[in-house]
Amino acid sequence: MTTSHSLKAAAPPAAPLTAALTTHLASLLPSSSRDSLRTSVLPSLLTSIAATSTALRAAQDVSLAGSSNSFGDDQLNVDVLAEEAIRLCLAQCPSVVTASSEEDPIEKPVQHTGLPFQVVEAEQDRTHGEVYTVAFDPLDGSSIIAPNWTVGTIFSLWDGTSALGASPRDKQIGAVLGVYGPRTTAVVALRFPGEEKGVCFEVGLSASSEAGKGQEWDLIRPSVSYAPPPFKTRYFAPANLRSTNTHAAYAKLVAHYMAENYTLRYCGGLVPDVVHALVKGHGVYLSPVTETSKAKLRSLYELFPLALVVECCGGRAVDPVSGENILGDKGVEGCDERGGIVCGTAEEVEYAKEVLCG
Amino acid sequence: MTTSHSLKAAAPPAAPLTAALTTHLASLLPSSSRDSLRTSVLPSLLTSIAATSTALRAAQDVSLAGSSNSFGDDQLNVDVLAEEAIRLCLAQCPSVVTASSEEDPIEKPVQHTGLPFQVVEAEQDRTHGEVYTVAFDPLDGSSIIAPNWTVGTIFSLWDGTSALGASPRDKQIGAVLGVYGPRTTAVVALRFPGEEKGVCFEVGLSASSEAGKGQEWDLIRPSVSYAPPPFKTRYFAPANLRSTNTHAAYAKLVAHYMAENYTLRYCGGLVPDVVHALVKGHGVYLSPVTETSKAKLRSLYELFPLALVVECCGGRAVDPVSGENILGDKGVEGCDERGGIVCGTAEEVEYAKEVLCG
Repeated sequence: MTTSHSLKAAAPPAAPLTAALTTHLASLLPSSSRDSLRTSVLPSLLTSIAATSTALRAAQDVSLAGSSNSFGDDQLNVDVLAEEAIRLCLAQCPSVVTASSEEDPIEKPVQHTGLPFQVVEAEQDRTHGEVYTVAFDPLDGSSIIAPNWTVGTIFSLWDGTSALGASPRDKQIGAVLGVYGPRTTAVVALRFPGEEKGVCFEVGLSASSEAGKGQEWDLIRPSVSYAPPPFKTRYFAPANLRSTNTHAAYAKLVAHYMAENYTLRYCGGLVPDVVHALVKGHGVYLSPVTETSKAKLRSLYELFPLALVVECCGGRAVDPVSGENILGDKGVEGCDERGGIVCGTAEEVEYAKEVLCG
Repeated sequence: MTTSHSLKAAAPPAAPLTAALTTHLASLLPSSSRDSLRTSVLPSLLTSIAATSTALRAAQDVSLAGSSNSFGDDQLNVDVLAEEAIRLCLAQCPSVVTASSEEDPIEKPVQHTGLPFQVVEAEQDRTHGEVYTVAFDPLDGSSIIAPNWTVGTIFSLWDGTSALGASPRDKQIGAVLGVYGPRTTAVVALRFPGEEKGVCFEVGLSASSEAGKGQEWDLIRPSVSYAPPPFKTRYFAPANLRSTNTHAAYAKLVAHYMAENYTLRYCGGLVPDVVHALVKGHGVYLSPVTETSKAKLRSLYELFPLALVVECCGGRAVDPVSGENILGDKGVEGCDERGGIVCGTAEEVEYAKEVLCG
């Protein structure tokens, strides 16, 4: 696709935060060194999720895509709608200086076309050089858009002017997962350099309590985390189940979950599959890599941000081949580097790692 | 729960049909003997789906239910919201004289409280004694509401004053599946007595093209059907996978799908799981019954209407124990009778039946 670098459309209407959510953000980000993140970047990302939600609701013709009668083109249009809504919102954030996406995987400077030059300069001056790079997957789960299953948007937030060549453990400071289902919700994770533990909370888009005010984001769960054992119900989500035919260890692992009476939930959308475990308090998501089934998840747009959310909730996320944490010192040199993932409840990830990596 | 039999709330605002959808309905229902079905019952069911969709979007506190921290009560509230919206809409339909639901599984006369007595009488007179019974599951998929996955509403429409003791093959004349996901869609199946084949089409809720007019239902796919072979991708949705541990034939069947490289999609919601196959053109959904895992799907609110949709799309739906068609001459004597189901692409259902029933 070609992304419109000169964004001519107007930015979507802001979906404001409720007082409760504003207060929550202020309690998590008391330092003035994150002023722009708190008052500009996170609100803009949430506005772009609200705009994408609106675009999806209106995109009824997408149901033709992926059906047995028609393919591809309509579906791509929804990706483009999401991509454009997000780019327009990022153009409103003076501190977001670089962006790339799964639809347009090249880091480029963000043109703050919606704002007068003086406003951008003044804001950048005011925020003491607070500078971010955003990497995003505008619409994840393209195969399940046509049947009207829940899909998502993934954002990864980095300190500095690039996400390339940087340590994700140190430089990726936030991740946001937008969830488009019967409701519109989002999970926000933040972890700053030097912090061992991060925070994660859930927000939801509701009609404003003030008439005529449109939608607003409210705080739903101030703290999201995996539950400690014992687990009442244990869930597993095995991506690419077909690869059990060529990957003996994966087949053994799936047999283990079945023999041990784990409950299957696998919709095939990264965001809903990972968020399911966060809401239920337990789960393991597995996307293995084999000789015949190559790594397909992008580190920058999928693996890094998902891993940050999972870790901030007390879970783990490892590479299914090396067994190493997805978020180590090693970053990526290019926007298109790919891998697999095993993530979720820490105990489950440890077990899966032992079986898969020996 | 207690259902409010004296419905005091106002009926939800009508979600009108576009001209294209109105024309489509008229082409399917040219006979004046189905005037009320075409102009009152189906539009009212669609309005209740629109109202349920709106209620779900506003129900952000439901995300607490089913989480590791909180249980049950909030979630039930969403069921009640849906139940009430539907009852209010049925009260607008003079020809719907009896209703029961999965939340209140007793057949009761519908009180047309929203309409003056004279209007009801005149309409019933005008429609030549066209009389229907509606059985519905207001919100199916309660376990996946909290994580914001797609859920659904199921309607079953019967000729006459009761769905009990009647042949589902002859007397169940329609089924509607409401799908609440990133969009709001519905699948409508109709098959009248004496007809061998039925019809099935998909509609979607969009913002009206006229400003200030709210939402309207539009025709998305005039004809929904499973694809003929060969199948590019084959899908399976194995409910209650745990029972493979006690049900050797089911274990054998699941092993077959895995060995044959079927793609797994199983979200655990009856409506989205069945609709997935309708949109993709292929799929088999399996909900077996074993000694330890009793039948839990209700014939009246789940099995009969799903089977009608599947058959109208050229698929099959059989009982996983007897292998008999779900829609035979045999009806139910009580609202709470239950069973399992195997449904989807005809060839797949035939194979699964052979393995499960011998």
